[in-house]
Amino acid sequence: MAERVAGPEIERLVQLLARLPGLGPRSARRAVLHLIRKREELLAPLADAMRVAQERIVVCPVCGNIDTSDPCTICRDPRRDPSILVVVETVSDLWALERAGLLNARYHVLGGVLSPLDGVGPEDLAIPALVERLRGGEVREIVLAVNATVDGQTTAHYLADVLFPFGVKVTRLAHGVPVGGELDYLDEGTLAAALERRTVF
Amino acid sequence: MAERVAGPEIERLVQLLARLPGLGPRSARRAVLHLIRKREELLAPLADAMRVAQERIVVCPVCGNIDTSDPCTICRDPRRDPSILVVVETVSDLWALERAGLLNARYHVLGGVLSPLDGVGPEDLAIPALVERLRGGEVREIVLAVNATVDGQTTAHYLADVLFPFGVKVTRLAHGVPVGGELDYLDEGTLAAALERRTVF
Repeated sequence: MAERVAGPEIERLVQLLARLPGLGPRSARRAVLHLIRKREELLAPLADAMRVAQERIVVCPVCGNIDTSDPCTICRDPRRDPSILVVVETVSDLWALERAGLLNARYHVLGGVLSPLDGVGPEDLAIPALVERLRGGEVREIVLAVNATVDGQTTAHYLADVLFPFGVKVTRLAHGVPVGGELDYLDEGTLAAALERRTVF
Repeated sequence: MAERVAGPEIERLVQLLARLPGLGPRSARRAVLHLIRKREELLAPLADAMRVAQERIVVCPVCGNIDTSDPCTICRDPRRDPSILVVVETVSDLWALERAGLLNARYHVLGGVLSPLDGVGPEDLAIPALVERLRGGEVREIVLAVNATVDGQTTAHYLADVLFPFGVKVTRLAHGVPVGGELDYLDEGTLAAALERRTVF
């Protein structure tokens, strides 16, 4: 029905946008109408930005980050401490840590977590590349910044075992009450960790 | 922070996508990562579709619909009943009615509703164009398919007054219980309308 009404070009744009995470068919339609209303300010720049992204974006062969330079901006940055390597599951996690601006380290993107149920084994993740990066001898600490999920923690344990022979310090993120979090909504594991590692006020 | 990390091209794409309704900065980032992972299947076609949309889409000068042909597909369709004109607030509403596939009429998009508080008066809507369309004499009924909001109903009353001198039949959508709706969640006005217009089972 909609195709006949709005022209195939519009319907195609709706269908493509609806495939983005967070947008469904209805919100994709709303987005298309918004784009058309803001043709010069939004639609044209967005089409250009996508074209540029498509042409220039590469996956960094060193760390797995996504960037327009190869190696990526972080791997090329001489001010980054080369002795700390932060292992993350995905590029989104890397970006989240960078947004927080707390680290001056380099990263290693695993590209997922071990998940026997989903058939994801060590060979499906960037673990050989991680081991390879240790051979230079520069890395002194590996921070396992994986998610606090069952699969994330399984992966952390597996990595700790794999990394043990290299004699690097392997650390992981602390558990505790999130800032602004309400105790009432937290699970017992988090509360237990927060209590156990309580600090003097 | 993020700009330095991900390259200005990626950050620009995130910022543009975040301006779409329904996407915020966080979901825009997720969308960009998704686009980059699906570069060939999604990013490239989407860039093309946006380019095509930007070049070809026009607002129909007759009804206000958005299409790639001028006048729009609906206005040009000879099978549409020219005696019924359905007045809607926005193109989204037009599309919603077309998706339902219940009508074989033509449309008129007002481009909003009267809203004194927001400074929207009759001259800001496509009301003169609507009056103009009546001069041909073909239109026998005008269906006011505006939203059941205060502003929508104010606009409907105003239009009914404006259209009265032309002697066309002016109708509006019925109020009642939505299909699948639970009485418990409906307001009294809806329940009153549903009761008043109850039909024999």
